[in-house]
Amino acid sequence: MNEQNTENCEKSILQLRHSLIQSLKAVDQEIISRLNKSIPLISDIGKHLINASGKRLRPLLTLAMAAQFNDNSKKPILLAAAVEFIHTATLLHDDVVDESILRRGKKTANIIWGNEFSVLAGDFLFAQSFELMVETNSIEALSSLASASCKITQGEFQQIQIANKPETSLNDYFEVIGKKTAELFGASCKSGVIVAGGNVEQQNAAYEYGFNLGLAFQIVDDLMDFNNSPNKMGKNLGDDFKLGKTTLPIILAWQKSNPKEKQFWIKTLKELNQEPNDFKNAINIFNKYNIFNECKKRTEEFISKSIKCLEKFPDTIIRDNLIGLANESIERSK
Amino acid sequence: MNEQNTENCEKSILQLRHSLIQSLKAVDQEIISRLNKSIPLISDIGKHLINASGKRLRPLLTLAMAAQFNDNSKKPILLAAAVEFIHTATLLHDDVVDESILRRGKKTANIIWGNEFSVLAGDFLFAQSFELMVETNSIEALSSLASASCKITQGEFQQIQIANKPETSLNDYFEVIGKKTAELFGASCKSGVIVAGGNVEQQNAAYEYGFNLGLAFQIVDDLMDFNNSPNKMGKNLGDDFKLGKTTLPIILAWQKSNPKEKQFWIKTLKELNQEPNDFKNAINIFNKYNIFNECKKRTEEFISKSIKCLEKFPDTIIRDNLIGLANESIERSK
Repeated sequence: MNEQNTENCEKSILQLRHSLIQSLKAVDQEIISRLNKSIPLISDIGKHLINASGKRLRPLLTLAMAAQFNDNSKKPILLAAAVEFIHTATLLHDDVVDESILRRGKKTANIIWGNEFSVLAGDFLFAQSFELMVETNSIEALSSLASASCKITQGEFQQIQIANKPETSLNDYFEVIGKKTAELFGASCKSGVIVAGGNVEQQNAAYEYGFNLGLAFQIVDDLMDFNNSPNKMGKNLGDDFKLGKTTLPIILAWQKSNPKEKQFWIKTLKELNQEPNDFKNAINIFNKYNIFNECKKRTEEFISKSIKCLEKFPDTIIRDNLIGLANESIERSK
Repeated sequence: MNEQNTENCEKSILQLRHSLIQSLKAVDQEIISRLNKSIPLISDIGKHLINASGKRLRPLLTLAMAAQFNDNSKKPILLAAAVEFIHTATLLHDDVVDESILRRGKKTANIIWGNEFSVLAGDFLFAQSFELMVETNSIEALSSLASASCKITQGEFQQIQIANKPETSLNDYFEVIGKKTAELFGASCKSGVIVAGGNVEQQNAAYEYGFNLGLAFQIVDDLMDFNNSPNKMGKNLGDDFKLGKTTLPIILAWQKSNPKEKQFWIKTLKELNQEPNDFKNAINIFNKYNIFNECKKRTEEFISKSIKCLEKFPDTIIRDNLIGLANESIERSK
């Protein structure tokens, strides 16, 4: 896919970004001003991470959900900044846990400043996110994001527990990515609707939209590890494979593999005994069983569910763009 | 001091514990039930830490502050559990940051389960603390503890920055221990008064009581590194010295030291070049300049301030015990 096509297939997210540009700028200002108020080293680490993370997708969802109700208050902006802080805190701690070296092509904070400062900076961002939420004065929005934060950590634990286990059940896998990724998407959306005054049915629909979008998003992210397209996530091809991470294509391939192929997965993913050609061999097995297509089908199912939830919202351009954003998220992996 | 004396000098805290025994049990049940609801590994790590930490001092303060207003609701119990979760989360991350091996004579979680699980378990406990706070429905109590959480992390950062610097100013030192230790004492007290319906003046007085008590508590903790009395904190003698931590006796001794003595501090604390006799040599310098007495005097000043704040509260047995608890905290170090 060339740059032109990438832009075409991301039309809705660009439109959304364009129509919410003032609010997005206010979110960035809020983030920077909170970081500047802390001690210099925290501020440096926070800015490194915030600048490295690209799309502000989660804050965009919070703002867009609120914008459907013509909310012009500062509350969605505070929440959107809080959501980005939570996300950034999890990235910082993830990189410590995974001993990562690069994120989006830049050195990780744990490499530049060491594990101890990464742990503490993550703690600061997390605590700061709750200070931001407090300022919205909405205990319901706070509740939604506190619950998501709890589940993220549980998901991270469970992700470690299923690592190097291609025999993991689909149920267990979906539980992990549900907690690790989709919950924050869900809460980002729901909290936006809460502070903008949407009713309970709309709050729940927003959560479901975000949650299903998050599941799709994570599967696409899993696929990108094996997909040689221009990769805007900055992920390196084969990173997950090298670590033996248990992702959707791996699980589906394991289920279909013959004994010889299972031996291959055991050697490469359980024993982490990998030879130069093994990544290519893995892709050959995926192609043999049409795994990429099956992943895509599952992604499309989540996206359909996601879009259906938007029926609860008024017919606005913002809603059209949220539908488009969901559809475009499948294209990311092509 | 023998065991008998230790108990005598802790009479008030024992009385407080006795009169709040039902609430304290409810806090423990709340803690265990929240841990049991999470995934098994988090539950194990949480219980390891919760069992290892002894006195539940911070939750006791929350409960006692609320009990002054005859609050029989569940709110102080939820808050007290939240406070213990925040404290435990910081201990978990502290041990990762400091690469500690023992805490209160037991192996640390990072040694048993590894850094990655300690980081994630700390994150879980921290997120869980906010879920507990949400259930009190008090955005003010939550705000107080969110603000303390932010400051704790900043204090931890600054503590690392002043490490191996005996030339640190007293102002910088008090800022660090204020954030790192005293803020959570303050917020534990204040949040108890908030949910029990105390007025703003009483909320602030509770914060000041806790904050000053926390400063005194930290100085006593600093002193214990050099004090060979029966040590109920389970701290090992000389641990801080070995790491070159910048504590109050060190700063005061540095300020009075002659050039030869300064060379000694530079060698032992800045260069961490320590010989077997150096710990004893350090204590000799402390004794030469009467440093332990000066630390005690400063502790007494904070305790006086602390006790004065209690004038804002009704004259009850609980208040008497809170005064006693403050006075006894000086005795800890004798």
